[in-house]
Order: sequence, then C-alpha cells, then structure tokens
Amino acid sequence: MNDILTFVDQNRDRYIGLLQTACRQPSISTQGIGVLEMAELARRMLTEAGAEARLSPIDGGNPVVVGLVRGTGPRVLNLYNHYDVQPPEPLELWHSDPFGAEIRDGRIWARGVADNKCHLVARICAVDAWRQVRGQLPLTVRFIAEGEEEVGSPNLERWVHDHRAEITPADGCIWEGGGRDFNGRIRLSCGLKGICYVELTSARGANTDMHSSRATIVPNPLWRLVWALGTLKGPDERIQIAGFYDRVLPPTAEEQAALDAVPFDEANFLQTFGLDGFLLGLSGRDLKLKDMFQPTCTVCGLWGGYTEPGRLKTVLANRASAKVDFRLVPDQDPHEVARRLRAHLDAHGFADIEVQVLAAEHPARTALDAPIVRAVQTVVRRLHGHEPMTVPLTPGSGPMYVLCQALGIPAVSSPGGGHPDSKGHAPNENIYVEDYVNAIKGMALLFEEFAKTQT
Amino acid sequence: MNDILTFVDQNRDRYIGLLQTACRQPSISTQGIGVLEMAELARRMLTEAGAEARLSPIDGGNPVVVGLVRGTGPRVLNLYNHYDVQPPEPLELWHSDPFGAEIRDGRIWARGVADNKCHLVARICAVDAWRQVRGQLPLTVRFIAEGEEEVGSPNLERWVHDHRAEITPADGCIWEGGGRDFNGRIRLSCGLKGICYVELTSARGANTDMHSSRATIVPNPLWRLVWALGTLKGPDERIQIAGFYDRVLPPTAEEQAALDAVPFDEANFLQTFGLDGFLLGLSGRDLKLKDMFQPTCTVCGLWGGYTEPGRLKTVLANRASAKVDFRLVPDQDPHEVARRLRAHLDAHGFADIEVQVLAAEHPARTALDAPIVRAVQTVVRRLHGHEPMTVPLTPGSGPMYVLCQALGIPAVSSPGGGHPDSKGHAPNENIYVEDYVNAIKGMALLFEEFAKTQT
Repeated sequence: MNDILTFVDQNRDRYIGLLQTACRQPSISTQGIGVLEMAELARRMLTEAGAEARLSPIDGGNPVVVGLVRGTGPRVLNLYNHYDVQPPEPLELWHSDPFGAEIRDGRIWARGVADNKCHLVARICAVDAWRQVRGQLPLTVRFIAEGEEEVGSPNLERWVHDHRAEITPADGCIWEGGGRDFNGRIRLSCGLKGICYVELTSARGANTDMHSSRATIVPNPLWRLVWALGTLKGPDERIQIAGFYDRVLPPTAEEQAALDAVPFDEANFLQTFGLDGFLLGLSGRDLKLKDMFQPTCTVCGLWGGYTEPGRLKTVLANRASAKVDFRLVPDQDPHEVARRLRAHLDAHGFADIEVQVLAAEHPARTALDAPIVRAVQTVVRRLHGHEPMTVPLTPGSGPMYVLCQALGIPAVSSPGGGHPDSKGHAPNENIYVEDYVNAIKGMALLFEEFAKTQT
Repeated sequence: MNDILTFVDQNRDRYIGLLQTACRQPSISTQGIGVLEMAELARRMLTEAGAEARLSPIDGGNPVVVGLVRGTGPRVLNLYNHYDVQPPEPLELWHSDPFGAEIRDGRIWARGVADNKCHLVARICAVDAWRQVRGQLPLTVRFIAEGEEEVGSPNLERWVHDHRAEITPADGCIWEGGGRDFNGRIRLSCGLKGICYVELTSARGANTDMHSSRATIVPNPLWRLVWALGTLKGPDERIQIAGFYDRVLPPTAEEQAALDAVPFDEANFLQTFGLDGFLLGLSGRDLKLKDMFQPTCTVCGLWGGYTEPGRLKTVLANRASAKVDFRLVPDQDPHEVARRLRAHLDAHGFADIEVQVLAAEHPARTALDAPIVRAVQTVVRRLHGHEPMTVPLTPGSGPMYVLCQALGIPAVSSPGGGHPDSKGHAPNENIYVEDYVNAIKGMALLFEEFAKTQT
C-alpha cells in the first residue's frame, strides 16, 4: 500500500486543487444556486478518476450523481455523499470569500468544505490514486452523491425506491462526514439521529398590519406563536408532546459501553464556544447520554413584525413564523412526530397555527461489530496509530435509514477531514489541509482492507 | 367674529398656499432630511403672522420652534405641534409626489399634511387673520412645535425641564391633530396612552451559530426568548409583571359616560380588518372599556436564527430579539414599567435577557369638564353645528404628559383637518381643503371663546 500513499503525497497539490475547484462552485440547494453546475462538476471529476458516472435525474429535485468503479474482488462498497452545501449567510461574519476556498494557516476556508465536499473529493482522489498506481480497485465502489441533503433529502426515499437495483447489493456503506475530536482522535459513527423539521405559521390576525394601539382588542399572531411554542418545551427541556418519547429505545449495553469509552473534554468545549455551562447544568455521563441518545426540539428560526434592531415602530403585525427541528433517536418516526405535533397544537388551543413539514428522516443505526465498522477501525489504527472512538450515534441527521438500514446495508462514517472547529453550517467553515490528505489515504487503505473482508 | 371668518374666506388661496409651501419642505426626522430647513420655515411663517418666534436649540436633537403672540386678555393658550413628518416610503404606492402638495379632488396630498402640518399652519393662519382684522389677539398664544415627534420625542422632557418658565403658566393647551370620524362628526380627545417600548435580546448562547444537533447540550437563545416572553403574558391577556396594574386608574363615572356615548361599529371593524372576532371574544361595553382604559403588552417584532420562509436550515443560533411595546394608561409610569420588567425577568430566571428601552412616554389625561375642553366643544357647535364626540383617551401616544399634565395644563385636541381616510404614516396622506379652511376658522373662534373663559 505504501506505493499508493506515496502517490497521494506526490499528488497532494493536484488533489488540493480539486477540492478548491469543488468548493469554488457554489451549490446551495436551499437557495437553488449552482446546484446543477456542481452535479456536473462532480460527474466530471468522477469520470476523470475512472468511474462510470452519470447524473440520475429526480423529477422535481436535484439529480443524484452516481459513479460506479468496478473492482477485481467480490466486495461492494457504497459511498454516500452530498454535493450541496448550506447557505453561507451571514456573509459579514466570514473572514474570506465563502466560495473562495482560500488556504490560510494550514486550513482551507469555504462553505461546504467540511460538510461535505472534502469527503466527496477525497474519495474520488482515493479512486484516482488506486487506479493510477494499480490500474484497478480490489473491490467495487459505488458513489451515491445527492444534491438535497441540506434540505432534508426530500426526494431520496423515492429515488432509492426507483433505483434499488443500481445500489444493491452492497456489503457496507461509508457515510458522509467524519473526523477528529478535540484530542485529535478519529471518531467513527455507526448511526444518525432522525429529523422532523417544521415551519409553524401564525397568520389568523387582521388582514393588514395595524397600529399597535389596537392590540387592546385585535389578536396578535406574534403572541399566538410565542405561546404555542411555549407549550412544546419549557426550561426543563422535557418535550411536552404526548407520546413523543414512546418509541425512544434505551441504549444497549454495548452502546453504553461504547459511549463510556468516548472522552468528552467538557472544559475545552465550553471554552471553545464561549459557554458558561451546558444545558440543565449537565456534565459527565448524563451529559453524554443526553447528547447521544436523547431527541431534541429546537427553535431554529423565528420572525414576524418589525425587526430593525434598535429602531422603533409600533406595529401590530399579522403574521409570524418559526422553524422548529426535532432530532429523533431510534426508533422514533418523523411522520408520527409531525402528526403528534399537530394533535398537540389542536389540543392546546392552537388549531390556528399552521404546520408545514419541511423534512422528515428516520434515525438509523448499525451494529457496532459490523464488518465495515471493523474494517474502518483497522484503517484508523494503521494510518493514525490510535484506536478510533466508535460511537453508536451522531447527533446530526441524514438519509442513512433510507439508503442503508432499510436496505440491510451496514453503515459507518469514515476517518474524514472534519475537526471540532470545522464550523459546519456556520461562518468560516474550514478543514485542515493535512486532514484532507489523510482522508484520501484513509479511503485508499479502506478499499484494500474491506476487499479482504469475509462477510 | 364674522369679520374674521370672512377674512379667512377671502384669503383662502393665500392660506392654502402657505400649507403647500410647508408640505413641499421635507422634514423627515427619522432620516434627518430637511428638518432644520422646515424649522426655519416655520419660524419665518410665525414671524410673518406677527409672532415673536425663534428656534430653541436642543443639544443632540432638532430645535423646538417657539412662537409667542401677546394678546390683550389674561388667558394664555399653548399650541403643541410638530414640524417633522414620517418617512414617505414606500414611494411606489403614492399617486403623486409626497412633497408635491398637489391639490386633486378637493384634497391636498402630501406626506405630513394631516400629521401634522395642516394643524401647525392653520393655527398660524388663525393668528394672521385675527391680527389683520383686529390688530391684536384677545389672549396670549404660545406655539411649541417640536421636530422629533415622529421619533418618540426623545429630548422633549429635557427641553421642557430647561424651558419651563417660557411655556408656563398656561390655562390650556391645544394638542396636535384632531378631525372627523366616519360619520363626519368631530372627535375631541382629552388624553393619550403612554408607552414603554423595549427591545429584548437573548444572546447568552454559544459564541457562534452551531449545528442544531448540538441543541441536546447547548443553550438556545431563541428558546430563552420564547420562554421569557411567555412569562409576560399568556392567552388570558393578563400581564404578569408584578405590580404592573397597580397604578391603573379605573375610569371615572364621567369618563365611562363619555365612552358610552362613543359609537363603535363592531361588525364594520371586523369586516374591514378580516377578523373573526375580537380578542377574548369581547364585545359591547367590555370591548370599548378594554380598548380605551386597559394597557397592552404587544410583541411588535420577533427575529432570530434562520428566517427564509419555506426553507430548511438546521441551525442553533446564538442571538434572538423581540420588540415589545407596553401602551400605558393613567397613572402608569413608563420608567417604572421598565424597572418592573427587568425585575420580572430576573425573578423568573431570565437575567440573561437584555432589555433596551427605546421609548418611554407617560400617559396623560385631562378632566372632561376642563375649561379648554368646554371652549373647544362650544366652537365645534358654532362652526360645525353638531355636538363633538369627546373621548377620554386616544390609544396613540405622545408627549402630552411632559408638556401639559406635568405642568398642570389641561389639554385637548382641536377640531382639525384629519378624517378617517387621511392615511397618516401611510402612502397618499391627505386632507380635504375645506377641512383645512375650517380648521383655521375653528382656531380663530377658539381664541375668542377661550379668552372669555373664567378659570
């Protein structure tokens, strides 16, 4: 394998350049900016690396970029990525152009560089390196790169249904993302939380904004929204929707043991993010248990009325909205949560609040001793010289259930380019150049390692 | 008096021209446009009408235009006006230049023509007519025209403190504004609600926006704001701040009787504003009592996190704000309300919520049988041939407490140029030319009537 790793080192500038090219192409699915251009760019990069690649169209959605690299051995490895990114706003907080991919202080700075273009491109580069050095891969690799992950993969379930034969069977799937923790230790994740993301709107006020003096007798949609939200969760953090916790599975003994093995540098985390303390004053095992195995209910956005900071306008507005996301754990069902939310609002006197479901994804998990998990652990030991931290669940969400669990494919994240200050979804997203180069090497090693697996 | 009224009719074109001149001079205090020019124009108009007029500077603010017209009798009448106007935006909705003062369909169209240049200029013209016909007024008149009413009169309290000797004693004050209701009946107002307008900010989360999956363990300023607001008022509309209602005076028997005499077409109101019903299902007397004599707590604006309608971003934001206005009734104190709000938040575990006070004005009221009120009522009967509707309180706010009640000066609005479709603060602001001419006559009559008053 040293020949391939050496080849990666010799080609590092070219590989870094490929990542910069990918980052300089905006692909903001939320805003419909540059998405098709990025899909085409990913297809071209895959083709140039030697894959049979094409855009698989989705009616009313962004195409899935599919790439097939046939190998010599029987094993089949799926690689899930997404080529879309979050919006870069607020722009004024960026220290360099979010689509400039500037290299500064050993890092590449760009929207989407961590989440998840570095992984998509590193995996393409790993194929390139293998083929340049050895001619052929020891296993078959399938790239599945969607363009709607950042908007909740609304069409992927349908796409998987229609393309099941193309993406199965597979012996394992490497999920998007992955990286180091505060101590530099690689973290692997065997599952994802699910999500139910809704927009709540209160608009049963007057047919026009009014002078706020009329608030004596005219209903105020902003108050209605505040009160409705207040029934969902109070400062004790317990979500008040009836039946919300019914399907929450307690962690298995193995998962608890895995969690216990995960260090969490609380002081460092608090200092990095400028916090006085954690929610509810938690620490230690309770903190970790809540972080990994508990669902959430989060107000992600809130707006209505006059919003010019520091200025005065006395208005009784007629519309207000909030975005709320519920992060779900096995075996909660996002569609059931949406139904229970509607029933909750009705039962609490808020039938006037409209609910629009913007995303619904099931939680997913893989057994901690699956062959793909063991193969990735072996690679980390070889490349990084340490035992990776393998966690049962990552608090983020994604279509892992649809693409893996529902198809019987074990999935795990890769030793990728992320780090604790990567700022995914936030201004000044970044990765370290060296982590990116190592991500390429790790994937190249995994091709060899997983090809050897007896399943 | 007929000689003076005839003089007004003979000079109507000149008086209309003066109003157009005033309206063609922008004076937008919010945007700092044309304010000093307008102050100087008002001073010149006052001087030409025979007043001793000057600009009284305010450190860091717009000058007050002060005009003194000495009369033969002992009575002293103050006239409060403001020479600033609201911004004209949105410009595209105007049918003619907001600063063109075009006359069309019997109306003058201009930003500020109703609020409140027609009153300022009509009062100057009334002085002019008196002096031209009789040489001298029968009472002393003081003009006090400020240039910051549309931004909440932030410096007027200080100015009054420093110039008390100049504006007292006075036997009565005629307030800015006034006019006809839907039925053409003149409405007089003997008071104003006060206001405490605050911006609440929750910003004690992380030092950056984070991925919403971190909501398991990281505090969410949006939730903090929602919960804090929820402690202020619930769906029963009762404001929960301790002591908030302590100073609320019940309406006097006379005020209740006056309120009973005020018609309120509920069906028409509901239909006009597309409402199913009034707050709390109120109607009849209860509705009117709440509208006029109860304070409010209104969320006027709300913002934080990701606010793009219909789109998905899973963010744990680190800042959220709300604008809240409290409309106050006699004898509530806006500064006390701000202090009680702070104490309330602290006591309910929301010491982290910042409070910025953007406006604070006391409520004000005048006894319904004050001589100045009676004098204006007499003028309305003579000029308009009907009994005016005299209301104890107008739900809007203004510096009436500072300029009148605190100085022991009874105040009432005048039979002015406003009408229900005047569109103050909105595009296509206008008054009827005939209402303006009548406003001049009404003020000329009031000089005579109030001069006769025994106080």
